[in-house]
Amino acid sequence: MPLPTALIDTLSAVLGDGWRTDLDSRTAHASDDSRRQQLPAAVALPQTRQQVQALVRACRAHGVPLVARGAGTGTTGAAVPVDGSIAVSFARMNRILDVRTADRCAVVEPGVLNGALQAALAPHGLFWPPDPSSADSCTVGGNLATNAGGPRAVKYGATRDNVLGLVAVTGTGDLIRAGGAYTKASAGYDLTRLLIGSEGTLALIVEATLKLAPRPQAQATVRAFYRDATCAAAAVSRLMAQPAVPAVLEFMDGRSLGLLRRHGIDLPEAGALLLIDAEGSDETLPDALAAFGHAAEGDGLLDLDVATDGAARERLWAARRALSPALRSIAPGKINEDVVVPVSRIPDLVAGVEALADAYALTIVVFGHAGNGNLHVNLLYHPDDADETARAHAALPRVFELALALGGTLSGEHGIGLSKRDFMARAYDPATLAAMHAIKQAFDPDGILNPGKLLPPLQTKC
Amino acid sequence: MPLPTALIDTLSAVLGDGWRTDLDSRTAHASDDSRRQQLPAAVALPQTRQQVQALVRACRAHGVPLVARGAGTGTTGAAVPVDGSIAVSFARMNRILDVRTADRCAVVEPGVLNGALQAALAPHGLFWPPDPSSADSCTVGGNLATNAGGPRAVKYGATRDNVLGLVAVTGTGDLIRAGGAYTKASAGYDLTRLLIGSEGTLALIVEATLKLAPRPQAQATVRAFYRDATCAAAAVSRLMAQPAVPAVLEFMDGRSLGLLRRHGIDLPEAGALLLIDAEGSDETLPDALAAFGHAAEGDGLLDLDVATDGAARERLWAARRALSPALRSIAPGKINEDVVVPVSRIPDLVAGVEALADAYALTIVVFGHAGNGNLHVNLLYHPDDADETARAHAALPRVFELALALGGTLSGEHGIGLSKRDFMARAYDPATLAAMHAIKQAFDPDGILNPGKLLPPLQTKC
Repeated sequence: MPLPTALIDTLSAVLGDGWRTDLDSRTAHASDDSRRQQLPAAVALPQTRQQVQALVRACRAHGVPLVARGAGTGTTGAAVPVDGSIAVSFARMNRILDVRTADRCAVVEPGVLNGALQAALAPHGLFWPPDPSSADSCTVGGNLATNAGGPRAVKYGATRDNVLGLVAVTGTGDLIRAGGAYTKASAGYDLTRLLIGSEGTLALIVEATLKLAPRPQAQATVRAFYRDATCAAAAVSRLMAQPAVPAVLEFMDGRSLGLLRRHGIDLPEAGALLLIDAEGSDETLPDALAAFGHAAEGDGLLDLDVATDGAARERLWAARRALSPALRSIAPGKINEDVVVPVSRIPDLVAGVEALADAYALTIVVFGHAGNGNLHVNLLYHPDDADETARAHAALPRVFELALALGGTLSGEHGIGLSKRDFMARAYDPATLAAMHAIKQAFDPDGILNPGKLLPPLQTKC
Repeated sequence: MPLPTALIDTLSAVLGDGWRTDLDSRTAHASDDSRRQQLPAAVALPQTRQQVQALVRACRAHGVPLVARGAGTGTTGAAVPVDGSIAVSFARMNRILDVRTADRCAVVEPGVLNGALQAALAPHGLFWPPDPSSADSCTVGGNLATNAGGPRAVKYGATRDNVLGLVAVTGTGDLIRAGGAYTKASAGYDLTRLLIGSEGTLALIVEATLKLAPRPQAQATVRAFYRDATCAAAAVSRLMAQPAVPAVLEFMDGRSLGLLRRHGIDLPEAGALLLIDAEGSDETLPDALAAFGHAAEGDGLLDLDVATDGAARERLWAARRALSPALRSIAPGKINEDVVVPVSRIPDLVAGVEALADAYALTIVVFGHAGNGNLHVNLLYHPDDADETARAHAALPRVFELALALGGTLSGEHGIGLSKRDFMARAYDPATLAAMHAIKQAFDPDGILNPGKLLPPLQTKC
């Protein structure tokens, strides 16, 4: 579907060389890490919020959809263009506008890379907590769009917990401002947190005030092996029930460990692994380590190691870091989900996934952010094996059903996008989805912002 | 304005003895702590969510407004009925439905008292962080409606940061469910945080899943006097810049201290006071205290005391606790605001308020939650003195203008209600207010939920 000529004229005037219709540019902005692909009709690379406003207004006038994107590292298709849309890249809006150390916040444009931001903050002794595995290549804007998390979320929260304010352009082209350089407010509806995690369906974020945290002086790691997931999950509950919160609390199930052993990684026979990071000052770290060690002890503990220096910590973390490459080499096809369950239901999730693996004759591994009950369920398959591929895709809905039946939800940090959109009707009842649709309508009355993502089509009432 | 007979018949059938039209009941639900007053046409005391749904649907059919209330301890008029409305009290929906210790959450009805909840959680070694000064008498539902805070918010956040999920009835009578017994989610719009702080204008909350924290083993207090507010504010920035977060970080300005001294409280001559609570285990507390003491030291520090046992801590806190009674006895009239500024701007706020006190010939004291930049500005006056009363009310808009000019906002924990509603247009630009109105319209299309509160009338575009 070609763009209207009048729109092309307007936007090339507004955006100058930030307006691209060549095939190379369109191809470079056609996909994300979901491996879905759709060429946009054009690519817009605005440099100012005024350009973003003009872009939205012009597209609204012509009914042309806009799909915002960061670096395209998302896994759900949220940033994949829809047919006939303009891909909006924030690559040129990547400035760090201010680092306010006394107010522990930074004001940034959405295109700045997470890793570049962390590097700029390090000399100030500060960091921004969200730490997705793609931190070196993903943008803050993408983190905002997906409510990105990472291992540190157990202590610091995910993106939504680490943003103080936003400036954004709604689907009408209006600029709205929410929050600011302060940590507490009861002054109207919380638009900041509403926009975070909305995947570009409500507004295009053009500036964010990010809440920063002081870098810890010292870190240490505890690695504990357990007989089974139930024993490890009980330890997770004990760890989360004491006042000192782990900085990181990661879980790997027995199938992940077995797979790594068969891959030549030196690991004991065990049913589950916990990796617990402690952080603090040189004075407080020993106490935190002692508290975590004590909480990790209990029924089913097989082995416990502690590391306080960098190299030793790296050795304890080696198995976790080896997992993703090992999974890739074992099976080139992988459905990587990130369901959430209440912490107390982790054993049920692991047992349920094991039952699904047996029923569907698949290798499925479970690992991830145990302190948040946010576990990556990876269904492995060979894309050349049509039957195995079909079984993996048939098992996927059962994984979601399992997480929901355990009182959990579809995603902890990846978001919904296209890949989980049609499962939203299982996660929410029609009235709740209708409320979300009404919010969408309030911000984007003509439905031009990332249409068809996140929300399934509205069910009309009988 | 009398209620339609058909509505009365319907609601007395739905609510039974939870339907009251007698004058005593109406009078008992006519005001809040703002001292505003408006008799409701009737009082509804539902016991189930189904009754709440039936109530909303019936009122919607007749265009009759509903004003939800907790215990009426709010200070902004948010819970004061509007003319011809039904006051909805949640006093009979006050059950603690579940305490899930392994998942560190509690599921409650909105009418439970904050203090009663804390008492029920104590045997589990857990607490719910929001700690408004009215904790013994206010309800969790009221805390949710206003995004209530308190001193602990500097470490734990306010209400919005301590709720995992909600069940609520919208202005159409539909029941919506958001979140659950998990701490991380990226699965659709964040309805939970949108409803928190919305002051009953979007939906009536009928159930909440609250995030709990483990009770600290040990606590200690540091009290530090400074030459002036600038030196104290610099210490606040130092305290907030180090990894160990104070559990409480309270500020009192020189006028507060002078007033207490004149009231017979034994205090040194000083321009500002900080009270810093540390918490942790018996092992970690000394390190935290040392870190806080170190950060408190600096230019302008006059005196520093540390207390680790209960009685000694109580002595350090005595001045803070004596302040509100002292204020009442000095001046029976008091406008108690709770503006927020970036932490770095606390000295400017204090200096600006001092200038206003001089300009308007008023006693104005500043104290409160320094770690969040959330300071109570109290304008004192004698209601019998018409001129002083007028000066106090004339100075109030200047206080808000000052906070906004410093990059802050109108309220940190009290909310907007009626008393600050008309200042919202100074805090937000028309497009942002229009977005809030559009959300209101999405949840409450007929405008029957607490109409006229929080949002000023919509400005139509020229």
